[in-house]
Amino acid sequence: MRQRDIQFDASGQLRHFLTIEGLPRQTLIDILDSAENFATVTEQTVKKVPLLRGKTIVNLFFEPSTRTRTTFEVAAKRLSADVLNININTSSTTKGESLLDMLHNFEAMHCDMFVVRHDQSGAAHFIAQHVAPHISVINAGDGRHAHPTQGMLDMFTIRRHKKSFNRLVVAIVGDILHSRVARSEIHALNILGVPEIRVIAPQTLIPRNAENLGVHVYHDLREGLYGADVIMTLRLQRERMQGALLPSEGEYFRRYGLSEKTLAMAKSDAIVLHPGPINRGVEIASSVADGMQSVILEQVSHGIAIRMAIMSMVLGRKPDKED
Amino acid sequence: MRQRDIQFDASGQLRHFLTIEGLPRQTLIDILDSAENFATVTEQTVKKVPLLRGKTIVNLFFEPSTRTRTTFEVAAKRLSADVLNININTSSTTKGESLLDMLHNFEAMHCDMFVVRHDQSGAAHFIAQHVAPHISVINAGDGRHAHPTQGMLDMFTIRRHKKSFNRLVVAIVGDILHSRVARSEIHALNILGVPEIRVIAPQTLIPRNAENLGVHVYHDLREGLYGADVIMTLRLQRERMQGALLPSEGEYFRRYGLSEKTLAMAKSDAIVLHPGPINRGVEIASSVADGMQSVILEQVSHGIAIRMAIMSMVLGRKPDKED
Amino acid sequence: MRQRDIQFDASGQLRHFLTIEGLPRQTLIDILDSAENFATVTEQTVKKVPLLRGKTIVNLFFEPSTRTRTTFEVAAKRLSADVLNININTSSTTKGESLLDMLHNFEAMHCDMFVVRHDQSGAAHFIAQHVAPHISVINAGDGRHAHPTQGMLDMFTIRRHKKSFNRLVVAIVGDILHSRVARSEIHALNILGVPEIRVIAPQTLIPRNAENLGVHVYHDLREGLYGADVIMTLRLQRERMQGALLPSEGEYFRRYGLSEKTLAMAKSDAIVLHPGPINRGVEIASSVADGMQSVILEQVSHGIAIRMAIMSMVLGRKPDKED
Repeated sequence: MRQRDIQFDASGQLRHFLTIEGLPRQTLIDILDSAENFATVTEQTVKKVPLLRGKTIVNLFFEPSTRTRTTFEVAAKRLSADVLNININTSSTTKGESLLDMLHNFEAMHCDMFVVRHDQSGAAHFIAQHVAPHISVINAGDGRHAHPTQGMLDMFTIRRHKKSFNRLVVAIVGDILHSRVARSEIHALNILGVPEIRVIAPQTLIPRNAENLGVHVYHDLREGLYGADVIMTLRLQRERMQGALLPSEGEYFRRYGLSEKTLAMAKSDAIVLHPGPINRGVEIASSVADGMQSVILEQVSHGIAIRMAIMSMVLGRKPDKED
Repeated sequence: MRQRDIQFDASGQLRHFLTIEGLPRQTLIDILDSAENFATVTEQTVKKVPLLRGKTIVNLFFEPSTRTRTTFEVAAKRLSADVLNININTSSTTKGESLLDMLHNFEAMHCDMFVVRHDQSGAAHFIAQHVAPHISVINAGDGRHAHPTQGMLDMFTIRRHKKSFNRLVVAIVGDILHSRVARSEIHALNILGVPEIRVIAPQTLIPRNAENLGVHVYHDLREGLYGADVIMTLRLQRERMQGALLPSEGEYFRRYGLSEKTLAMAKSDAIVLHPGPINRGVEIASSVADGMQSVILEQVSHGIAIRMAIMSMVLGRKPDKED
Repeated sequence: MRQRDIQFDASGQLRHFLTIEGLPRQTLIDILDSAENFATVTEQTVKKVPLLRGKTIVNLFFEPSTRTRTTFEVAAKRLSADVLNININTSSTTKGESLLDMLHNFEAMHCDMFVVRHDQSGAAHFIAQHVAPHISVINAGDGRHAHPTQGMLDMFTIRRHKKSFNRLVVAIVGDILHSRVARSEIHALNILGVPEIRVIAPQTLIPRNAENLGVHVYHDLREGLYGADVIMTLRLQRERMQGALLPSEGEYFRRYGLSEKTLAMAKSDAIVLHPGPINRGVEIASSVADGMQSVILEQVSHGIAIRMAIMSMVLGRKPDKED
């Protein structure tokens, strides 16, 4: 199993966190259980634990994202790590060689972790393949490929509300084709044993091989939402509107936007998730985003706990077992 | 009293610090007394106290200001808080809704304080009205409205030199009309019982309702400075020069610039303040800015102590009494 | 001795670190010995020591350099200092007066150290001449003048490999004329007693007074490398290519680039240094940069230890002896 090789060290401990695809169920459960403890920490008056004191974490952002960078920075500081924020203009470092020289420099400074955001799929894997043995890499979103910490915080949010995964109907609504969030969610839901995963979108926003992902495809929103326990909405990249893939925003909302009316098709205790930032009135109505069934802000809180869990897990490996 | 409502929590403890207007005298005295302790801290070899360890403070700067941001960052770090610096391009977040979504995200990350700088009057109040109960907001300058931490550090500086407020003649010189600093100073001086507050400026730079603020208006510099104990100079925004409000810089200095000659009109032990950065030779002569009576750099030192006092006061509230 | 005056305080302790020129041999030895301890610290699991807790270090970068700024930031944080990163657009602060006002503001905030990077030679000295007695200034590179922490980390790297300096042949290859790194290296090598220092470059890239620096000038690479123990390569500023100083990159590499073939002229245990970032295939072949004799990444590690040593030395002075 190729992904397993690179994400785990020789003694079988999680070293990198690049994608959820191919991870064993127990690894996901361990992360969720660990995050439960950190969720408690962040609710205390002193929200800081000394677990990563003396560690240096580098936020390597090749794609600007204040929002995601901030969640990693907050998580790292609550673990007492030192944080370096490095924003890299990809235009000046697209040559693989100078990228590697830069990475080796951070390694030589005895940095411990790279949190990588990149607009190209596979960038975090590429970096993980080339770093020194003492470095861990966390994928903070790469192209259309994966956003695994987002996927895990969504699972954490679902588990807090639904207790277990093995009887759920989960519907993912929106631009599945271009979404790294959807891809990570689908892998996690499958691994955790969700029996029915649905994706709902117009034909143009569904990947060709969708059924191979272990999902049921719906083009009709009401039909897809019928009886769902969990509704995961996706952000619609407004730039997609420019092309021929989509009709207008208004038309999109009318057909695929989650409104109070369409939400009523799901179970009465269904929860609504969104990875943010929200396009109100495009993929979701404000009344739903701010409504009783929305857990969108909980997701943000859980994102800190999940990132603390993953960071402390990969950096807390026993060094004597290191590959 | 409307302002009191929002700045204090249900049990009467200071929660936000948005404006000096309407605050009780005792609150100002408490801040000044607390800052005395922190002024001692910053003079020690180890300038750090663990009061806000585990707290996360977000510098939300919608208007760029390295200088002011730095003073808050230094104060927060000396209190052992974690600091996030967020620079927001107002052009991309002018829609109230997305601003609120961003704020709610920081709240969900369990941040504790927003330090807000904005070019629109009322922005800090607006934010304070919409944040979760566990959040405190500090106004770091909003449009022409208020810059209350600047006002308080000026009061601290005056008290250190003049011991009490109730026999002072204080003259504020410069662009009163556009100055949030002047507005905060005038409120503080009135509340602390200064019997004579004068504002000195050309007619075009005096607000219409000036007398209602509890000040005496002077258009002649020498007359206004006569017998003053404290002279508070203001920075002249050079962009005002573009419009019809003012003659040339040279002409302005000749009529309203503080020189050794005009300073001689004040009491011989008068002190000279300026909020910085200084336009040397425009609102103040270099010989005065660097002279024996200048307390301009003391103001900067006191700014750290005042901000430490206010930050620890609002975040040190008893949580069981929280509204 | 003019430089000695400003770099040492009244009681003879090192206060600033602006240039290696004129420093006593023992000062350099003390720095190297201290860095040995810090090199051990950075190899530990918890890489942090509380030596500078409560100190505030300001990175004043008038010339952008993420790379150099990061090494100082990492070093400062490992010493538990608080760090402020201030990037200054020189175009808006070229007036000496406003620069000094800014410095005095940081002093008033009780900052303890300025790490200064500037594109003009002498900038760090100028600042050191004007700061308050409690401030230390570290030169992080000024124009073509000096880059003394780079010089010291190179000495540290040489000593680790060659034990002592007094029998070495050291060759510096590349753009000597424009290089602050070369200048600092040459001073350090002379002070530490290296008997033979060679500089190798085309005539156009050698300073006129080269022999006065205590070096032997070579225009032929092979000849200059013959029998060398240490080869210090320099980064070729690509903008030099624009002018008439140099032929093409390919031609430069052919004549002055360090390849496996030319490296063979040096002693078989010669080490190869480069201050980074590397122009692979211009001043050095990739096979040499990544080869067995390269110590380029060790230099980066040592850079942290050297900066920790210098920072803690100048800020750890006995305050009662302060001038």
